[in-house]
Amino acid sequence: MPPSQKPAKNVLWIMCDQLRYDYLGCTGHPVLKTPNIDAMAKRGVLFSNAYVQSPICGPSRMSFYTGRYMRSHGSHWNGWPLRVGEPTLGDHLKKIGVRNVLVGKTHMAPDLEGLKNLGIAPSSIIGVHVSECGFEPYERDDGLHPTGRPRPAYDDYLRRQGYNADNPWEHWANSGADAEGALQNGWLLVHADKAARVPEEHSETPYMTRRAMGFIAEAEDDGRPWCLHLSYIKPHWPYIAPEPYASMYAASDVQPAIRSEIERDNAHPVFAAYMNMRYSKNMSRDEAREKVIPTYMGLIKQIDDQMGVLMQFLAARGLLDTTMIVFTSDHGDYLGDHWMGEKDLFHEQSAKIPLIVIDPSAQADSTRGTVCDALVEGIDLAPTFIDYFGSKPPDHILEGRSLLPLLQGKQPADWRKVVFSEYDYAMQDVRVMLGQPIERCRLFMVFDGRWKFIHASGFRPMLYDLESDPEEFRDRGADPSCADVVARLQAELFDWALHPKGHITTSNEKIANYANQQLQVKNGVLIGIWDETELGAIREKIGVKP
Amino acid sequence: MPPSQKPAKNVLWIMCDQLRYDYLGCTGHPVLKTPNIDAMAKRGVLFSNAYVQSPICGPSRMSFYTGRYMRSHGSHWNGWPLRVGEPTLGDHLKKIGVRNVLVGKTHMAPDLEGLKNLGIAPSSIIGVHVSECGFEPYERDDGLHPTGRPRPAYDDYLRRQGYNADNPWEHWANSGADAEGALQNGWLLVHADKAARVPEEHSETPYMTRRAMGFIAEAEDDGRPWCLHLSYIKPHWPYIAPEPYASMYAASDVQPAIRSEIERDNAHPVFAAYMNMRYSKNMSRDEAREKVIPTYMGLIKQIDDQMGVLMQFLAARGLLDTTMIVFTSDHGDYLGDHWMGEKDLFHEQSAKIPLIVIDPSAQADSTRGTVCDALVEGIDLAPTFIDYFGSKPPDHILEGRSLLPLLQGKQPADWRKVVFSEYDYAMQDVRVMLGQPIERCRLFMVFDGRWKFIHASGFRPMLYDLESDPEEFRDRGADPSCADVVARLQAELFDWALHPKGHITTSNEKIANYANQQLQVKNGVLIGIWDETELGAIREKIGVKP
Repeated sequence: MPPSQKPAKNVLWIMCDQLRYDYLGCTGHPVLKTPNIDAMAKRGVLFSNAYVQSPICGPSRMSFYTGRYMRSHGSHWNGWPLRVGEPTLGDHLKKIGVRNVLVGKTHMAPDLEGLKNLGIAPSSIIGVHVSECGFEPYERDDGLHPTGRPRPAYDDYLRRQGYNADNPWEHWANSGADAEGALQNGWLLVHADKAARVPEEHSETPYMTRRAMGFIAEAEDDGRPWCLHLSYIKPHWPYIAPEPYASMYAASDVQPAIRSEIERDNAHPVFAAYMNMRYSKNMSRDEAREKVIPTYMGLIKQIDDQMGVLMQFLAARGLLDTTMIVFTSDHGDYLGDHWMGEKDLFHEQSAKIPLIVIDPSAQADSTRGTVCDALVEGIDLAPTFIDYFGSKPPDHILEGRSLLPLLQGKQPADWRKVVFSEYDYAMQDVRVMLGQPIERCRLFMVFDGRWKFIHASGFRPMLYDLESDPEEFRDRGADPSCADVVARLQAELFDWALHPKGHITTSNEKIANYANQQLQVKNGVLIGIWDETELGAIREKIGVKP
Repeated sequence: MPPSQKPAKNVLWIMCDQLRYDYLGCTGHPVLKTPNIDAMAKRGVLFSNAYVQSPICGPSRMSFYTGRYMRSHGSHWNGWPLRVGEPTLGDHLKKIGVRNVLVGKTHMAPDLEGLKNLGIAPSSIIGVHVSECGFEPYERDDGLHPTGRPRPAYDDYLRRQGYNADNPWEHWANSGADAEGALQNGWLLVHADKAARVPEEHSETPYMTRRAMGFIAEAEDDGRPWCLHLSYIKPHWPYIAPEPYASMYAASDVQPAIRSEIERDNAHPVFAAYMNMRYSKNMSRDEAREKVIPTYMGLIKQIDDQMGVLMQFLAARGLLDTTMIVFTSDHGDYLGDHWMGEKDLFHEQSAKIPLIVIDPSAQADSTRGTVCDALVEGIDLAPTFIDYFGSKPPDHILEGRSLLPLLQGKQPADWRKVVFSEYDYAMQDVRVMLGQPIERCRLFMVFDGRWKFIHASGFRPMLYDLESDPEEFRDRGADPSCADVVARLQAELFDWALHPKGHITTSNEKIANYANQQLQVKNGVLIGIWDETELGAIREKIGVKP
């Protein structure tokens, strides 16, 4: 290869669903061992302060896929369509000749009304690009397939293996088997300790891994660089794992719940309402934790094993030297910590994610195997990828920042001092419980690495000091001694709220050139000039002939 | 006509460009008489506290045309395209079978890149709808046509009258004639006292009036209801009027400048930079005011006379009983007040607009001829029109409120307590003078009817008390005795900034139904339910069979 010809670069962006930060070996889980993921961390950088822009699938993912905060992309909830024309990573990569390809989940809902208004058929090439959030859907599978909804290709796969049913996804892969093999409803927590009714090789995680490898093999012939989003469905519920993972961990492996009676004492109204949700009350019971958590661990262990398969595949094809590899998640899972189930609020268990980035380039050699505690956001990945492919991220659109400097061991002086996360509970019972108007169900987190401040529209703020209270038990929001911290983080939120990246149609370069080059006068629009002498002087100064 | 058949309703929405609030008879000008506009005020309601969402043409208009704040529609400056898919008044009216038609100016720039990304030809029906900001362009004319730019139809009109030139708009209609009839550059303030080189009937204001009447006549045959935006170009510069209006007012009719040395003493940095702009320095000179203001008055007088023509036309066709008529402006003009030219900042001369609304329906009879001092915004017109046509304004998209209750003499208890206006000076020399980063050139006004608070990113705030200081000479932003007012209005701005209407793809009805109807469980997605007994109880409660 001549020295001027750069090797093709690719990005493999692996995302788990509902995988919390502390359920990996390399992030400190005392029981769960994840040697393959740990090995990835050794080859790259582990970010220990990475936060999602909303602790729920859809909005978090729309932030990952657009590089923009929820308040900017507008998709506040699962199934709220991303508006037509909202620029995605796929749009940016398309312009530089990179394929943006999906295997797995995005949680994107197409903006059918917007498409209709613009006369775009959803099945047209552009219609699919828009509807699939800028991805080329090699395999789209959002992971939840109750009967009556459109079916995934995985159903057909199961049928080909002989697993026939109206809904093979539910009937075989996501239901548990009792002692006699009879079906137990996998949606219910009480059955989380049952094994899936398919053997491991036919369960969703290895299926998706094989689909990803299938794409990578095909892409070799195609020749264009690619960004492959391998987006696993697990360890998200239904909490059902196949053997041997279903039996790999026991109730004795479950760590004590991170919770305190202090939290229930005069709890913030929004927190109190969430603690009162069915899933929170159920997941606060030891019986549920002992059913669910071992399976959650097994599902993660299965992913770790699949990482081993996948990395071997890449190594065998010589792709490790040119492929940036990212391993992350879309949000966490309380698992009964803080008297909560699911995600929704901003405790570390929910809003913090594992993030490993392997940059194969020589400039990143100095950081391999290190942990970076810089404040990082999910929206940073899109600009990182664009930067990795050698293009300049459009900074009037993207609200995240490229991580390449951090991966190369640099410490940018102007790196962000706070991270933001948002949540809109308008679609939940919590809204009804609190009697909040639909437009005022908004929560905002500001975290500076020590203090976590939460603004709740219509309520007092919450505040946690992770230095003196790393478990986030004591809400200091109303503590007079914290008034200055509240004021400081409120001011950060205020400034952030006033400066969304809204002018997506006009680049900063264009703006800079306009004022610098006096384009208005050049274009002949003369504002408030007194007479011919003044006009002549201006024209001479900027080099324009009359 | 059977009683169940309602007469067709129409809206005639007249907008002037750069017409400030206090330059009409009915708003108190001591010299300028506007009997036709005053007569309109007598037939409707004059709003004495109406503010634009940005005191500059493009962004202000995009707010009028979308019913959304600048931070939501994203078009911060003249020529910054409104993004594809941003919903316009035209989109909403289209759904209810109303034509949204333009005669005159919008200042819309098409989002060519967005259209290209979506494969939409700008010349297609949908391409034109998007490019014309949701208007059917019966006649589009943005009013500024320097040589080298695309030409308006008005050029051809002038040529047909024998006014030939490369640029008839500039050469004849917007240049002044000296004593010998020779051309004087109409862009220059020094020539503002010269008459246009066309007779009155061929100048832009009556031309546009005739075009509007042409549309209305044609629409009678078409039969569909319409909303006609008659958008005059004047009294915006070039400050050139045809006779007799050019000679109608003299230097002696010019009112004293509203300004004080106090304003220049320790001026806020942003205000100081604006006072230092060429147009401000020129318009602060008495010589310039005495040239410009009589012509500005003449141009308004001409519009008033055209209002007489137009109202007679509507009366003769029997349209006054069914047509809502609005008379307003897109922003004001400092004319040397406050040591300023142009608009840009938020003094009454710039951000406040005349607004007259005539609702012909019987329910509005009680308010005819009254003045309403409710706080009103430009974004209120779009929902007002939708409401007038009998449809419900989509309240998850529109950030304005229908004025119909006010027109019917009601005083909604939850009417807004503050109005907002925004400005982005990134494109101006002011940015360079102040050394501000492009993304931080933002100004925000909050006005509660007495106190006008201005937040300037990176600078101290400004504050004016219009009760004790109606002329807005004393900036109290740093006055310790006003700290509570600053805190209160800052909190209003904070709350506003956190709650943009971002989820334009998902209606509030859909959100309300979702939680109320437990749609998640109905759809088969079961979250955190313990066992069959609990599931059965939930299903029974919401009436779903297993």
